[in-house]
Amino acid sequence: MNKKLLSAILLSAFFTLAPQLVYAEKADYLRPDLTVPADNISSPARVTLGKNLFFDPRLSGSRWISCATCHNPGLGWADGLATGIGHGMGGLLRSSPTVINTAYNKFQFWDGRARTLEAQAVEPIKAAGEMARDMVELTIELESIAGYKKMFDKAYPGEGVSETTIGKALAAFERTLITADAPFDRWVAGDETAMSDAAKRGFEVFEGKGQCDLCHSGFNFQDDGFHNIGIQQDPPDAGRYNVRPVAILMGAFKTPTLREITRTSPYMHNGSYKTLLEVVDHYDRGGDTDKNLSPNIRPLGLTQSEKTDLVAFMVALVTEKPLAVTLPNLPQISPEYPQ
Amino acid sequence: MNKKLLSAILLSAFFTLAPQLVYAEKADYLRPDLTVPADNISSPARVTLGKNLFFDPRLSGSRWISCATCHNPGLGWADGLATGIGHGMGGLLRSSPTVINTAYNKFQFWDGRARTLEAQAVEPIKAAGEMARDMVELTIELESIAGYKKMFDKAYPGEGVSETTIGKALAAFERTLITADAPFDRWVAGDETAMSDAAKRGFEVFEGKGQCDLCHSGFNFQDDGFHNIGIQQDPPDAGRYNVRPVAILMGAFKTPTLREITRTSPYMHNGSYKTLLEVVDHYDRGGDTDKNLSPNIRPLGLTQSEKTDLVAFMVALVTEKPLAVTLPNLPQISPEYPQ
Repeated sequence: MNKKLLSAILLSAFFTLAPQLVYAEKADYLRPDLTVPADNISSPARVTLGKNLFFDPRLSGSRWISCATCHNPGLGWADGLATGIGHGMGGLLRSSPTVINTAYNKFQFWDGRARTLEAQAVEPIKAAGEMARDMVELTIELESIAGYKKMFDKAYPGEGVSETTIGKALAAFERTLITADAPFDRWVAGDETAMSDAAKRGFEVFEGKGQCDLCHSGFNFQDDGFHNIGIQQDPPDAGRYNVRPVAILMGAFKTPTLREITRTSPYMHNGSYKTLLEVVDHYDRGGDTDKNLSPNIRPLGLTQSEKTDLVAFMVALVTEKPLAVTLPNLPQISPEYPQ
Repeated sequence: MNKKLLSAILLSAFFTLAPQLVYAEKADYLRPDLTVPADNISSPARVTLGKNLFFDPRLSGSRWISCATCHNPGLGWADGLATGIGHGMGGLLRSSPTVINTAYNKFQFWDGRARTLEAQAVEPIKAAGEMARDMVELTIELESIAGYKKMFDKAYPGEGVSETTIGKALAAFERTLITADAPFDRWVAGDETAMSDAAKRGFEVFEGKGQCDLCHSGFNFQDDGFHNIGIQQDPPDAGRYNVRPVAILMGAFKTPTLREITRTSPYMHNGSYKTLLEVVDHYDRGGDTDKNLSPNIRPLGLTQSEKTDLVAFMVALVTEKPLAVTLPNLPQISPEYPQ
């Protein structure tokens, strides 16, 4: 091993073990390139197909629930509810996460049980409590709709209509749901007038006294990590522990993005808080339970103005113009109509 | 009474009593002016507010069902289901009608129980089996959302947030859901190439042997009338009779528009038929029950090619480009965010 490599490893080990010593720099917040699976490179045909599927309630067993029902573009691509609602209108345990910027995530779902958008996208369709659709029946039905058949042939020639191509198309569409620059990004790029003074002070609290960036790091303000942040929940939810049964992951959930944050209230994996100030208060008091609490969580001793500055900073992560979506005209079963 | 008036009355009585003798003319299909209530003249602020409300699931008791759930722009502003689904995902008795061109209707709902869009729009919000929302709670909630408060003040200054202004705004939005010209309209305007020969032959069947225009008349292909067309239904549905208990109205339903027809399968008030050919077959055999059947319904003796021509004509009533809708970014409750 040469000396250069060794020192690089030691240096990165130091930063890994002692992240609280390192203040992030503006450059850490630059927009990264998207990683796209080699077998699902984006194309207009794939995105169009995925968009149609995303808004099509026929993807559910009831033919009444679409992906967009709970990932509603008008509500920050979430549902505005504390915890989700699914098939039969039964309540779900967790909050419907936004699908905005999920393309940047290494893990999908609150417990990270899917590693790709392709794998994630089909799970809620099949889940009995969500869209409750038999995947074999769904593929047969989509095959039978001439408009869809054409779209699949164009998007994935030779691959057919299958759970795999449904997942791929949905993922291709979701990778287009990327936030534009927010005031914070323009500030990072050098425009000092882009953020208010309160937001700038809030950013200092965010990286300094609050150490929020221990978990909410980088462009998408999340670390692809899982943390127990001391949310009291009845019944308890093991979270990531269900996927990796390691003690530290009991009650741990994936760090969500802070982008478009004012559009995705309520907050936390179970929607405990309606406002950002309530969220800040939660962290300020070091959570509500110390059972298996992440070492990143402890009382912060923020002043009232530090709290409102922190909120002002988060507001600066929200784009002035959210993603605009024109609804697709879904392919009709009507065999008389030229699709 | 002068002679001119007398002869006008006699003439109109003749046409009223013997409509089957009169062939409609192209001029009968010209786009009429919209009638708008004097206290709800359209304005951009009213349409914008109505659009936000239309797509907002917080209008329902569950906060999960919006007007657009069952009047889905991607499915011809209907839901693609035989009969609707509502709160608790219970089944409804009737099919969700399209809201396209309802601005031209004198009556709303399948049984015509509302006379204006304003009166219609709030009923499904309140209905226990549909959106199940307490109207008092809804107005309080909308008041509390700064973005909505502003929108109401701008759209209906001095009128406040109320059941009345909610209904007005939704109606103002719905009056914008007017179909563009279809091939048929271009043909009416003189472009002989706009419709296929099959569609032209179909139009002759429509007005001639089929006498479809006895009920499906005028620009919007409906007569603001109620007819029992011999649909077998279990349990039976009294339809218009519930509103006006007159024997002839037992099992009678409002004539639906034929505009955008291939986008609104399945057909009939209870969604009995998936395809237009099945619908044509229904009329061709004179319905499935003669219990209280409308005199307009009797076996037609259509040939197979007349049937397919009739379908080709109905396809010519469908616009190439349906109404495009960009989803609104709904006002958020988050008090930190400048609305």
